[in-house]
Formats: sequence, C-alpha cells, structure tokens
Amino acid sequence: MPNEEKRLGWVGAGRMGLELVTRLLEAGCDVAVYNRTRAKAEPLAELGATIVDTPAELGDRDIVFTIVAGPSDFTQVVTGPEGLLSGDGRHPSVIVDSTTISAEASAIVRAEAEKRGTALLAAPVSGNPKVVKAGRLTMVTSGPEQAHELALPYLNVLAGGGVTYVGDGERARLVKVCHNLMLGIIAQTLAEILVLGEKGGISRSAMMEFLNNSVLGSTFTRYKTPAYVNLDMAPTFTPALLLKDFDLGYEAARELEVPMPVATAAQQVVQALIGHGYTDVDFAALIELQAEASGLELEPEGAPVSDGLGQAA
Amino acid sequence: MPNEEKRLGWVGAGRMGLELVTRLLEAGCDVAVYNRTRAKAEPLAELGATIVDTPAELGDRDIVFTIVAGPSDFTQVVTGPEGLLSGDGRHPSVIVDSTTISAEASAIVRAEAEKRGTALLAAPVSGNPKVVKAGRLTMVTSGPEQAHELALPYLNVLAGGGVTYVGDGERARLVKVCHNLMLGIIAQTLAEILVLGEKGGISRSAMMEFLNNSVLGSTFTRYKTPAYVNLDMAPTFTPALLLKDFDLGYEAARELEVPMPVATAAQQVVQALIGHGYTDVDFAALIELQAEASGLELEPEGAPVSDGLGQAA
Amino acid sequence: MPNEEKRLGWVGAGRMGLELVTRLLEAGCDVAVYNRTRAKAEPLAELGATIVDTPAELGDRDIVFTIVAGPSDFTQVVTGPEGLLSGDGRHPSVIVDSTTISAEASAIVRAEAEKRGTALLAAPVSGNPKVVKAGRLTMVTSGPEQAHELALPYLNVLAGGGVTYVGDGERARLVKVCHNLMLGIIAQTLAEILVLGEKGGISRSAMMEFLNNSVLGSTFTRYKTPAYVNLDMAPTFTPALLLKDFDLGYEAARELEVPMPVATAAQQVVQALIGHGYTDVDFAALIELQAEASGLELEPEGAPVSDGLGQAA
Amino acid sequence: MPNEEKRLGWVGAGRMGLELVTRLLEAGCDVAVYNRTRAKAEPLAELGATIVDTPAELGDRDIVFTIVAGPSDFTQVVTGPEGLLSGDGRHPSVIVDSTTISAEASAIVRAEAEKRGTALLAAPVSGNPKVVKAGRLTMVTSGPEQAHELALPYLNVLAGGGVTYVGDGERARLVKVCHNLMLGIIAQTLAEILVLGEKGGISRSAMMEFLNNSVLGSTFTRYKTPAYVNLDMAPTFTPALLLKDFDLGYEAARELEVPMPVATAAQQVVQALIGHGYTDVDFAALIELQAEASGLELEPEGAPVSDGLGQAA
Repeated sequence: MPNEEKRLGWVGAGRMGLELVTRLLEAGCDVAVYNRTRAKAEPLAELGATIVDTPAELGDRDIVFTIVAGPSDFTQVVTGPEGLLSGDGRHPSVIVDSTTISAEASAIVRAEAEKRGTALLAAPVSGNPKVVKAGRLTMVTSGPEQAHELALPYLNVLAGGGVTYVGDGERARLVKVCHNLMLGIIAQTLAEILVLGEKGGISRSAMMEFLNNSVLGSTFTRYKTPAYVNLDMAPTFTPALLLKDFDLGYEAARELEVPMPVATAAQQVVQALIGHGYTDVDFAALIELQAEASGLELEPEGAPVSDGLGQAA
Repeated sequence: MPNEEKRLGWVGAGRMGLELVTRLLEAGCDVAVYNRTRAKAEPLAELGATIVDTPAELGDRDIVFTIVAGPSDFTQVVTGPEGLLSGDGRHPSVIVDSTTISAEASAIVRAEAEKRGTALLAAPVSGNPKVVKAGRLTMVTSGPEQAHELALPYLNVLAGGGVTYVGDGERARLVKVCHNLMLGIIAQTLAEILVLGEKGGISRSAMMEFLNNSVLGSTFTRYKTPAYVNLDMAPTFTPALLLKDFDLGYEAARELEVPMPVATAAQQVVQALIGHGYTDVDFAALIELQAEASGLELEPEGAPVSDGLGQAA
Repeated sequence: MPNEEKRLGWVGAGRMGLELVTRLLEAGCDVAVYNRTRAKAEPLAELGATIVDTPAELGDRDIVFTIVAGPSDFTQVVTGPEGLLSGDGRHPSVIVDSTTISAEASAIVRAEAEKRGTALLAAPVSGNPKVVKAGRLTMVTSGPEQAHELALPYLNVLAGGGVTYVGDGERARLVKVCHNLMLGIIAQTLAEILVLGEKGGISRSAMMEFLNNSVLGSTFTRYKTPAYVNLDMAPTFTPALLLKDFDLGYEAARELEVPMPVATAAQQVVQALIGHGYTDVDFAALIELQAEASGLELEPEGAPVSDGLGQAA
Repeated sequence: MPNEEKRLGWVGAGRMGLELVTRLLEAGCDVAVYNRTRAKAEPLAELGATIVDTPAELGDRDIVFTIVAGPSDFTQVVTGPEGLLSGDGRHPSVIVDSTTISAEASAIVRAEAEKRGTALLAAPVSGNPKVVKAGRLTMVTSGPEQAHELALPYLNVLAGGGVTYVGDGERARLVKVCHNLMLGIIAQTLAEILVLGEKGGISRSAMMEFLNNSVLGSTFTRYKTPAYVNLDMAPTFTPALLLKDFDLGYEAARELEVPMPVATAAQQVVQALIGHGYTDVDFAALIELQAEASGLELEPEGAPVSDGLGQAA
C-alpha cells in the first residue's frame, strides 16, 4: 500500500473499471467513484468506495483515474459542463486516463486540463479483466514526469505486471497502438498456423500446447487458447475494435513515414473478416475465416484447455 | 532421473547438442557420444560420457538422439555405410531426431529405419542453447506412440519446458515449421513497431520493457531484446536459415492448400533482407532494414536490458 | 469542333494545362486563360487566347476549366476573394475541374458553387502531357448530368481517348483514385518481374518488348518503358505523389469497408521507397529498390526503346 | 507467307492449337497434324492439312510445333516410344513448343532432343483463342538463335502481335511466368478497385469503360470486361491454373532470390479463392470473393460491353 495516502477518484465502472478500482479498494485506498449508470458502481460501496453523481464531485480528489468508452465520453467527463474540471474550486492534480483514444483526442484534453493546472497522464493498459484479476495487468504512461511519480504507487497497485514510463505527451498512446498491432498480427498468425497444422493432422489443442510451452508462448496466446481450440467466440474484443487499432496504427505509420508490410497484411484480413459478416464475435473468429479460405470446416475440439490465468486471487 | 535406466547414444555435439547431452549426463544417464569432429565431443568425457568414433558404434544403444546440421548429415549418420543401422548386430529401438529437416527427408529415413526394426521419433525443439541451459527448452514429437513413451523420461530431462506428442509420422516437423513461421513473423512485427515507436519518440528499450511485461511478452521477445535494443547482431540464427523455414512453411501451405497472407508478407521481407546484404548477421537485423525503409538511422541504445534467461544454472 | 460555340475560361497553365488549352485553341474555341504566373500563359496568346489577370475576370465565361496544383489552390481560384465566383455579376454555368483533390475538398467547393448557381463537374484525367499531345487522354466526369452534357463537346476535344460520365457528386474522384491505385500496382509489378527476369538472364528491353506487345501491354507500360529499361528517373510523378494517391485509396477503402490486400502491399513498397531516400525521382525508381532488395545492381541498358506515344502532332 | 517453304508438323489440336494451325494453313503452309483424339484434328483436313496417327510420322517434317496439355504429354510426344524423335530416320530440325511447362521439364526434353540433332525452341504465347483469331497473339522464344531464325517466318504467321527472342535456353519460359504473374495481379487489382468503386456508387461497366480507354487499358482488361461486368464466369482459365503460374513464379523468385511482395499478396488471394470453393469457374471470380470480403452482393449488370476483340477475321 502506498505510504503517503492520496485521495483518489475513479470514473468508469465497466468490466475493466470494476476490476481495477477493486484493487485500489482492497489495497485500502480512499476512492470516490462516478459511473454514468450509478447502479453499476454501487457494489463498490461495500468495499469502501464513496459513490458520486457527477464527475464534478471528484474535483477535490488528488488523483482521478478515467477509463471510459471512447474519446467523446472522455472529453465529456473531463471538460464537459459537469466534468472534472468544471467547478471553480479545487481540481485534481493529476488525471490518469486508460481510455482507448487517439493521440489527437488526448492532446486536446491535455491542453485544456493544463490550462486549469491539472496534469494528464496517458496510461493505456495491456490485459483484460481476467488479467487484472490475476495481478498481471501492465501499463505504459506518458505525460509530465512529476505526475507519473505522484501516481506511481497507485499505478503499481493497478498494474501488477509492471508500469513503463515513456516520456512526455501522447507517447504512451502510440505504445499501446504498437502493442495492439502486435496483438492483431499474432491473432492472425495463430489462425494461419493452426489451420495449416490441422490440415496436416495436428489438433489445435496440441499445436497450442506446444506453442504455449515454447519460447513463443505468452499470456496472450494462453488466454486465447480456449477460443482457438473450442471456438468459443463470445466477444471479448470485436473485429471492429481491432480494426480501429489497426487504423490508428496505419495513421501513425503514415504520419511517421514507416512502411508496415506485415501489419497492413494483417489489417486487410481483419477488414475482410468484417466484410464476411464476422461482426458480433470475438476477433479470434479470424480462424473461422482462415478455415473457410482453406476449405476446412472447423469443429470445437472440446478439449480441456486452460486460459493460463488460473483462479482469481 | 528416469526409473528404468536405458543405455543412450548421442550424435551431434554442436552448440545445442553439447547443452542437451550435458543435461542427460548431469541427470546421471549412461550416454555414448559420436561427433564428426571428435575433439568437440571430448569435454563430455569429463562428465561421464563415452566417446565413440563412428555412429555404428552406437548400434547397441537403446535410444539414440541425433541433432546434426541438416538432412544429408542425418541420412548419413542413420543409413550411411558407418551409420547407426549399418551393423548386422543390434540396432537401437528408437532414434530421436531433433535436426531441422523436411517432412520428406524424415519420411525416407523413417521407412529405412522401420525396415530394420528401429522406430524414428521426430523431435524438433523450440529454444536455443541458452534456453536449454535455463531449463526451458520445449519439444514436440511424432512417430510411433510406443517410441515416444519409451523415450519420454529422457525427453523430459532435455526439455524442461514440456514435451508435446502430436501423433504419427512427420507431424512434429510441421509443428516446428509453424512455430518458426510465428517466430519470423513476430521478429518482423517487432521491427515494424520498434521503428514506428522510435520515430514517435519512444526508445526501443522502453517499448520492449512494456511489451515484455505485457500479455504479449514471451521468452522469445525477452531473449531478442538485447539484439533489438543494443543492436548486437552476432548471428544466433541467420536470415538464410529463417528463410529456409519460411520455404518449408510455404511448401506445406501449398500442399495443404492454405493461404498465408501474413506469413508470406513476412517471408518477402526476409528475402529482401538477404538481397540488401544482411547475410552474415542475426535475423534481428530485420530492424536494420526496417529502419532504412523508414529513413531512420539506428544507434545502439546501450541500455542495460536482460535476455530474460537469467544465469545459467 | 463543337456546334454551338460557348465562351470558355481556363485556369492553370502548368505542363498539363498548356497542352490541354492548346487543343481547345487549335480546335478554334474562344478561350480566356488565367495563370498565377502570367508569363507562363502568354505563349497561348499567339494561338488566340485572351490572357487575364485574375480568375474573377473569367466570371462571364460559360464554362471554366480548372487544373491547378492542389485543393488549396482550387478553393482559392473558385471561392477566394478574386475567385471565379467572387464578382456580383455573371458566374460561369459550369466549372470543369481536373485538379487532383480529395472527394471531401471537392464537395466543399461544389456546395459553395451551387449556392451561386454554378455547377461543378469533377473531371479527372488519365495521362500525362505527352499523352495529351498524342490525342489519347481520357477523362471521367461526375456532377450534374446537364453540366456534363453542356461541356461534353469541349471535353471530347481535350480527351481524345474518351470521356466517361459516372453520375452525381464526387464519384469521378473515386474513379481516378482507383485508376491510380492500379497504376501504382502495375508500376511495382513491373519492378518485380523485370528484376526477376533480369536475374534469370532476360534483358529489361526484351521483357518490356514482349509485355508491351502482349495482351497486358498498355499505353502506360509503353510510356514507362524508357524509364525501366534505360533508368531515366527524371521525375514525371514522384513517389510522394503516388503515395498520396494510395492514401486516398486507403481512406476510401476504409470508409467503404473494402479490404485491399494487393493495393496495400504495393502501398507499403512505395512508403519504403521514400524511406530509402528515393524522393526526388520518378516513381519508376521502384525498380531501383526492387533491385537492391534482390542483390542486383542495375545498369541502364541504353536500348533504343519507344515510349509508344509517337511524334507529337 | 514465308519465302522458302518448309514442311511443317503440328502436335495438339485443342482450342488454341486449332486456331493456330488454321492460321498456317490459311497462309498456304504445308502442315501435317497429329492429335491424340484424331477426330478433333480432322476438320483441318478441309483446310489442306494432312492428318497423321502418331507423332513419329512427323519425324520427316522440318519444323514441328507442339502445344499440348502439360509436361508429361510434351515429354511423351517428343521422346516417347512413338514420339517425334523415336524413328531411326530423319528428325525435325526444330521443335517449337508452346506448352505451359516449367523450365526444368523443358530443359530435360531439350537435352534429349539435342542429342538427336533437333533444336528445341521454347515459344510460350500471350493470348487466348479469340486473341489468336483477332491476329493479336504474341510470342516469346528462347533456344538456339539459328532455330529461332529458321522458324521466324512461321512464328510471324502465328503471332500477329509480335515475336520476341530472348536468348538461349529456357528464358522464354520465365518470361511467360512473369507475364502470368502480372496477369494475375491485374486480375486481382481489378477485383479490388471494381468493388471499391461499386461501394462508392460507380457501376462496374462505367469503371471498366474508363479504365479500358485510359492509359492502363490493355487487350486483357478489355477482354475480361464481360466477365467482371456481367459476371459470366464460364472458365477460360481456372483459379487452379492461375495458382500453378504463381507457384512457378514463386519457385523462380526463390531460386533467383527476388522478393515479390505484390505478387505473393495476389497469390494468397488466389489460394483463398480456391479454398472458398471457387474452383470450376473463371479466375475472374476473384471479384466474387472480393465482394464477399467487402460485404457486397454482386449482380450481373447486363450491360452491353465489348471484349475488344471484335469480329473474328
């Protein structure tokens, strides 16, 4: 638990938000929470959270964390009429944002916040709610170094897997984009080689077992194993969201003049996935399209595979 | 250590071979070793190995492991005039081969061996000598299940990271090809995103730190970190060897009629890497070509990065 | 020559503009010309053109053609303070624009023009000044059909190769983008196969002769033959301009949700071409990069090859 | 008509063969024809051909042309027991082969023929039977220059569009492979941009009209127009045959160490086309897969489009 106790605020009690704020509460932090649909935040009261009705009520908190649906929500909760910075009185010293938004949208809010004396720390994360629960979330931050230092004890509570500070401005947003390009490429690579293996007589569970144990195995390949092997395509992240990340990557690559032959090849497949009608599914459905393109009919293997995240602590 | 002690033979004392046979010797196994250049094998005598002068002298061993330079050497040591199967007397029950060879070459030797009552277990591995030393090598096997069962106690000594049996015939060769396609794709993906990040102001060490901690981090991304960050391009695996694996992948994909949009995009980059003159270097030189294609001059960062493999035990 | 004679205006006397307006003048049309640098337009006076000092002076012309450097110039000459629509008096019935601009920029000017009763006909062309001279320029138009009908007799003078009307709005801009994607892909395809052929012992002049004669031969492959064979890389169209077209194609593809596996593969090569420092050259320099990536040193062949456009009339 | 009259032989009266030999007969040449199914060749007797029962009976002809189904047929008709070179007596001076076969297969037959004093001229062509009829076939040859010179007067009769000699050996085979790579890439490019255009409101007939008129228009784009516009997918060339050409291209590229980023991207799409079940159709079905991948349902446009080959002479 952090030494010097700051008063914390939290905006956004979606699936990720709930897991994250729970970690702070369990570490004994003082947290006030706002969520558009208040009912979703209320279970947190039992863990000691104060629930408030507007972001403005979090204005007197030292550090406020935000993780909302997208750039317009983020802008609204920070600079909107009832936003964090709307009051005349005290404003938070630091806003720590983990929303998936572009560098451009982040920069606009950053400038607004700085005018009112509030620092913005961009703080994208790697992991899903189960990863948070397993204590293995990782985070990358950018913005004023002082803001990072101030928030770090709390970031370490949130991100058991590590926190990397990458300097000023929106750099952390770009790091997250790079991370998601790699995630999308690996997802398509798995689709290609699992189908190749299966047509060669190798079950998907055997291939994934070997890969997961191998030097290439990662938390990601392990937690996607049930989807690829047993074809559970309940969406954790849709093809459209993945494509959005590829778009951000493409825009960064164009602006910075970097060719991306492998990333764009993967991007086109994700676009095709959507065109073929795989919209309301997990992006692991890449394997379904890959199988169709290979004249293979996939069946769930019904194999007892682990997602590698174990029981939640 | 295995319960019922078999008499083991070993062919091939290159860098991988030395590390592997050392593990067997340290586990107390009875191993006789043949290497074309006898001097290279001799240090193993101090650990208890018997050194022999021809593969034929290993004919009376129960299980013989082979890991040599390529298909022609493999064929020679097994079916050649002084090969494992050349004598009239006893032949090994099982040959366990970890050489990088095609399914076709393996199948020919397998048929020859079976005629003489010897089972061939194809046993490719994932990892380099440092991974072996760290006890994290993984192995995939195919061939007669009985042969796998017989060898398994010893395979577990060699491959601390796990052994996956994938059925009859040459399937394990295909699994290894799939593994290496993924490895090559990830290598090029890292090149693309590290250069994108660097042009956006993010050091390669910071990007790798975040990725290594993230859900995408793997033993592979960690042990390539020094190469990508500090540009140590001393070859562990050359572009030509990586291209050879892509070729095997392409051939399998054509035969099995599987499109590989991302794998072939990466393959073309590896081909271009060679054309641009990056031949006597590690395949991590992909980042050098990527930087050139992005108008970026790379400098070693001189950052204190780990390869994640720790001190050798 | 058109039956009913309209009074014509012309904005833009660059290399393309000069060739085009010359055709109108030679066909006996009444044309007044504006060019920012008046001196460049003056030679046209000898062919019967009236030279004016501001676009506004063309306000009383029936049809005004524009072909300028880009969107900002186009907006300026149409809706700027001294623009075509700036006067209180008569405005042209139709503006026919052949500038390379995005659909978005075109739509903004179109709306402005329509408010003042002037129709905008988007009219991109296929061909360079030598193609115009050879009477083989082609044009695609979109906008109000009536505007197209009114202008058609003059369009036919300009575009000896044919005029295709594709309906309302900015569609013609998209057709041009598609055309340029194909052009860029063919340029890279030629690079790939010429280098493949050369490494197989076939001179570039022989390969181009066969291709140009074959069912795949086009005006484009013929007029790029001198560049590919004799490596004359004096820029007719730079890599950056080609990349801009690929960007427009990418944006259209994303908006319309169309995967473009081949177009994006070519796009990445063009991006790499720029990164490798091929900036102030013709985009045919794609063959230089392709040769480098293949370990081949190119030499001009010095072969007497034709560009297929014959002597200028 | 050639000056000095040679006695000609012809093997292969498929669709291409019939059109080609007809041109020789109409030019007044003396031609003896062999076809496995004799009945198919018989209509040629009315035009003056002699019909024979075995290739061996063509042994006394000066020049024999071959165009058969593939490498095994070609080997059979040349070096088989009743082949062209089987008799003890005279053998042709030159065999001119236009079969689609690999350089390797061609080289084997070439060596056999040379032993018996017969020169092999590799002579692949560009065009289909309608292109032959329109007098626009083109041909590329390689082999001994003297053989080329001897045959040239007759080659000019066959290939109204031009004959290009590219030197010794199998080079002409590689030129043809390059030609077909380009053809496949253009076919996929048309699929991509036609679907992009259609989703942007542009009919396929309008897009093709503009492209065909433009500097990018070729005999090929024109003769594929009915397929792309009206979706007549009766096979002229199947996806499997196109993929075979991409394979030959890939093999050449690997051997000659040339990266082919655009060609391999197209190749993967052709492989996917087959996997998606488009097997017994024309390769223009690439547009069907492209439409599916874009969420677009294609309808035949029923537009009166020309294939650009006009009435057969």
